[in-house]
Amino acid sequence: MSLLVTGSIGIDTIETPFGKREAVIGGSAIYFAYASSFFTPVRLVGAVGEDCPKDLFKVLDGREIDVSGLEHRKGSKTFRWHGSYVKDMNEAQTITVDLNVLAEQAPKIPAQFLESKYVFLANTHPVLQQEMLKSLKSPKLVVADTMNLWIQNEHKELKNLLKNIHGLVLNDGEARMLTEKKNLIAAAREVLKMGPKFVVIKKGEHGCLMCSANDTFVLPAFPAEQVVDPTGAGDSFAGGMMGYLSTQGSFSSSTIKRALAFGTVVASYTISDFSLAGLQSTTRELIDQRWHDYKQAMSF
Amino acid sequence: MSLLVTGSIGIDTIETPFGKREAVIGGSAIYFAYASSFFTPVRLVGAVGEDCPKDLFKVLDGREIDVSGLEHRKGSKTFRWHGSYVKDMNEAQTITVDLNVLAEQAPKIPAQFLESKYVFLANTHPVLQQEMLKSLKSPKLVVADTMNLWIQNEHKELKNLLKNIHGLVLNDGEARMLTEKKNLIAAAREVLKMGPKFVVIKKGEHGCLMCSANDTFVLPAFPAEQVVDPTGAGDSFAGGMMGYLSTQGSFSSSTIKRALAFGTVVASYTISDFSLAGLQSTTRELIDQRWHDYKQAMSF
Repeated sequence: MSLLVTGSIGIDTIETPFGKREAVIGGSAIYFAYASSFFTPVRLVGAVGEDCPKDLFKVLDGREIDVSGLEHRKGSKTFRWHGSYVKDMNEAQTITVDLNVLAEQAPKIPAQFLESKYVFLANTHPVLQQEMLKSLKSPKLVVADTMNLWIQNEHKELKNLLKNIHGLVLNDGEARMLTEKKNLIAAAREVLKMGPKFVVIKKGEHGCLMCSANDTFVLPAFPAEQVVDPTGAGDSFAGGMMGYLSTQGSFSSSTIKRALAFGTVVASYTISDFSLAGLQSTTRELIDQRWHDYKQAMSF
Repeated sequence: MSLLVTGSIGIDTIETPFGKREAVIGGSAIYFAYASSFFTPVRLVGAVGEDCPKDLFKVLDGREIDVSGLEHRKGSKTFRWHGSYVKDMNEAQTITVDLNVLAEQAPKIPAQFLESKYVFLANTHPVLQQEMLKSLKSPKLVVADTMNLWIQNEHKELKNLLKNIHGLVLNDGEARMLTEKKNLIAAAREVLKMGPKFVVIKKGEHGCLMCSANDTFVLPAFPAEQVVDPTGAGDSFAGGMMGYLSTQGSFSSSTIKRALAFGTVVASYTISDFSLAGLQSTTRELIDQRWHDYKQAMSF
């Protein structure tokens, strides 16, 4: 089934205890698209500036990712982020960030994408998320991500968005900020009152938590002995989850659980190397194998 | 089978966002003993001072806990701890601590306990832990806990202890401190090199991690919407784990996994109320039921 992702596309410079990579491809939509493309064809919508080197997207060659929604905007500059995990592998320290094209209007969703049934609105301004959502014809499953910036500064618009999506993905700190609840289960229940049918709280190295009206589900992260670059882990997780969900057609709790496990496994590849190299190193067969290992590692 | 626990017995004053309890029973050996007594008869070894009110132990009435190793030491005072979770439910702030009897010699293990096959050396000075261990005849499974104080100040003695135990239980911060490895899987592997056949790293609200030579196992905490008092969660976890293990006779990875899940479930009762009230509110039948619910909540 058709899976659409809208989100950021960036040129990243990343420092971790394992080294430094300059001007590599990044951004929420890129990680999401690559991760979900192991499961289903993906439609990518995003904007870059005229400074963006064409060979930046070479890593997407051969993937089932339709880049016709990729806008090269004249007179604009590409989103750039320079982050460091040298001090703490669990939290990026932003050294410089230039929103550039991300601070402008939303990219246009191409007409041929408007009937997409599965939609992931990666983190951006909630007004833009709503605009993009409204332009879609009859999406079957809409999941969004958000961040502390919008929770603090665009609370009302974010609340409006939440009334119109099926699922929300956010991290633990954001969930606490949005709901003013310290306990994550309580926070998740509070998010459900705001509209979404399910909420997934990402806890980084501690895994994730999913709540729906009738179910609470917790998953540890895949036990990884070496984390090289955590950038994009959350977006890859969402990509694996949505990629799998879009092949299923139903959103029962058990389907969502399996999807979260796929998200967890896909993210474990992302963090094993810099930028997209971890995802490039794997295949659907390896993902399926690790998914079974992971399932086994938790069964008792 | 006979399960022996040595550790602290204390008079606690506890403050949490849910209220304050003064002069309630606490200490690692007490939580451990109560938690493990759902599974097997327990032998408790510990010391209190002459200030200890006799009715403090009333909560143990009717439990299969042999208190003949409980020493009422004349001229000594009972260990007292006053802690607060008002600021952070995940980390106790110690307001006052009086080691008292804990700073004296180790309690004597009664002759009739010396052939105990299953032993838990709850957190105390590693020299005392070694002394108590040496006095035992032929233990089949010895598991110890420790803390940052000994890791920092008694590193050599702790290392000596580690050579002679089967399992080590410690929290994430302690594991990182002991091994100087940030990644917890790497830290666990490092602990295995120090002697233990398996190591369990407790991550509080994020569950636990177990490593043995051939296995890595991760478990999330039981999803609890309301945590009233986290005191004793780690000792109850160890109690549930060891209580179950001592009924099994084998220590295969799959047995240890089931044991960790029992520890997780027992600890979920501990944190649901102050002091021992959470454990007092449950039964083996309820624990088994929750164990199955927990298993179900994670299966996919």
